[in-house]
Amino acid sequence: MSTTTKLEQIAANRSFGGWHKRFRTHSTALGGDTVFALYLPPQAEHGPVPTLYWLSGLTCTDENFMQKAGAQRIAAALGLAIVAPDTSPRGADVPGDPDGGWDFGHGAGFYVDATQAPYDRHYRMYDYVVRELPALVEAHFPVDQRRGISGHSMGGHGALVCALKNPGRYRSVSAFAPITHPSAVPWGQKALSRYLGEDRAAWKAWDAVELIAGAPERLPLLVDQGEADGFLAEQLRPEALREAAAKAGHPLTLRLQPGYDHSYYFIASFIEDHLRHHAQALLPAASRP
Amino acid sequence: MSTTTKLEQIAANRSFGGWHKRFRTHSTALGGDTVFALYLPPQAEHGPVPTLYWLSGLTCTDENFMQKAGAQRIAAALGLAIVAPDTSPRGADVPGDPDGGWDFGHGAGFYVDATQAPYDRHYRMYDYVVRELPALVEAHFPVDQRRGISGHSMGGHGALVCALKNPGRYRSVSAFAPITHPSAVPWGQKALSRYLGEDRAAWKAWDAVELIAGAPERLPLLVDQGEADGFLAEQLRPEALREAAAKAGHPLTLRLQPGYDHSYYFIASFIEDHLRHHAQALLPAASRP
Repeated sequence: MSTTTKLEQIAANRSFGGWHKRFRTHSTALGGDTVFALYLPPQAEHGPVPTLYWLSGLTCTDENFMQKAGAQRIAAALGLAIVAPDTSPRGADVPGDPDGGWDFGHGAGFYVDATQAPYDRHYRMYDYVVRELPALVEAHFPVDQRRGISGHSMGGHGALVCALKNPGRYRSVSAFAPITHPSAVPWGQKALSRYLGEDRAAWKAWDAVELIAGAPERLPLLVDQGEADGFLAEQLRPEALREAAAKAGHPLTLRLQPGYDHSYYFIASFIEDHLRHHAQALLPAASRP
Repeated sequence: MSTTTKLEQIAANRSFGGWHKRFRTHSTALGGDTVFALYLPPQAEHGPVPTLYWLSGLTCTDENFMQKAGAQRIAAALGLAIVAPDTSPRGADVPGDPDGGWDFGHGAGFYVDATQAPYDRHYRMYDYVVRELPALVEAHFPVDQRRGISGHSMGGHGALVCALKNPGRYRSVSAFAPITHPSAVPWGQKALSRYLGEDRAAWKAWDAVELIAGAPERLPLLVDQGEADGFLAEQLRPEALREAAAKAGHPLTLRLQPGYDHSYYFIASFIEDHLRHHAQALLPAASRP
C-alpha cells in the first residue's frame, strides 16, 4: 500500500472461491472519504486479472450490485475482478438535494464533474471513476489495466459516457436500462442543470446520445432494456440511442426484454450475458470458459 | 382464488424467464397479515412444479433470500418453485422483544408454535410454514405437493425441525449454517424459554439434535457450514448434529467450507448445490438438466 493513500478494509466475505471486500479510502477527486467494493475471483491468487467497473443507479451504494446481481458466480468462472464505487460523494459537508429528492445529490452523482457551486467541490464522480479509482485499484490489488465498464440506469449512462469519452481506456462496455439521453429527460435535466449550469451546450459532453457521433473509438455496445420498465419512455429512451448509433455507424446490440422491469431481478437475469460480453474483449480466447 | 383467503399481490418482477412475486395474506395461524414471496420458474406455465420452502434467519423477511441468494437462475433451469415466508408474525399488536433485541420477537419467530403468553397468540410460525402456507400456495399457484425445505441459521433450524417432525411431508431437506441444537445455545435458550416456557423438556420437540434419534423418516440431510462463521462455535454447533446423526444412523452430508462466513455471500456460493440436492428428490431423473 502506498504511504499516501489510506485504504481501510471494512468488510471481507468469501464468495465463489474468491473475495468480496469493501474499502474506505480518501478520494482527492471527491474531496472526502468514499467506500468501494471489490470482487476478486480465485484466479487473482495466481496473477493479475482484468476488471469490470460497475456503476450503480440512483439511490444505490457499492452494495446493491454486489448483493443482488449474482455476478460473482460468473466472474469467478471467467476470472474477472469487479469494482463497484458509490454513486456520489457522501458526508455531512457534501450538499444534497435542496428539495429533499432522491434523484439528485447523495446517491445521485450522475458520474459527471460538476462545475457549479456548491456542487463543484465534491461532485466529481467522473474523475474519480475514470482516473482515481482505477489507479488506486491497480496499485493495490492483483488487477491489470484491462478494463471494462458497465452500469444500470444512471450508472448505465455513466458507463456509456466514460467509455465514449476515453478511447483506449476501456476494452468493453455495456449497460442495463441506461439513461441514454440525459439532456432530454427529467432526471438528467434536473441533475445536469444543477451540476453543470443552465447552458445546455455544456450538457452534451455528458450525454451518450450526443457523444456517439464524435466518439473516437467504436467499442461495441451491449444494452439490455426491460420492456416493462416503468422509466422506459420518460427517462431512459433506448430508441434515441439506437438512432444515434445507427447514424454514427456505432455497433450497438440493443435487446428489449419483454416483461422485465427496472429492478435487480432484471439485472440478475442477464448479468451472465454481460460478463461474457466483457470477457470476450478482456480475456484471451483460450482462457475463456 | 378461494373466496375465504384474500391474497393480495404486492410485487411482481420477471426473473430468469419466470416470476418473482410477493403476496400479502391473512394467516389464521399467525393471527394477522403476513407477506410471503414466491418464485415461479418458466416451467410453471406448462404445469405444476415442485416447491422448495426457504426459511430465512434472524432479522430477515421474505426478501433477503430472493434478492441475495441468486437462486432463481438455477430454480429456472431445474423447474423448481421457491416460497419464502417472513421470519415471524408482524404488526403493532404482535409483541416483540421486551429488551429490544434482534434475536427474539419480530424477525425471530424461530419456527415454533409458542405456548406462553403473550407470544402464543401470534407466534405460530411452525403451523404457518408446515400447514397453512403450503395449503395456500398449492391451492392458488401451479405447484403440486412435491415439497423440499431449506433455510439459513434460525431458518436452517426451522427446516431441519419441520422435516424431522413431518414424515412424508417433504421429499428433501438441507440447511445453511443451521442452529442445530437450540436448547444448548444462547439464541435458542432465549427464544425457547420465552416462546415455550422454562420447562426444558418441552424444548426437545423443537431441537434437531434432540429430534434426530427418534425421527420416523431418514431423509438425507445436506448441511453447509462456513468455517469462518462468527456464530459457529457459540450458536450453530454443527458437531452436535454430526454426533447425533452418526448415533441415529441418519444420513448427513456436512460440508465445512473454509473461509466462508454467515452471510448471503456464503449462501449464494453454494445455493446451486442445494437446489440440485432438492431436485434429485423432487424431480424425475429424466427431467433434471
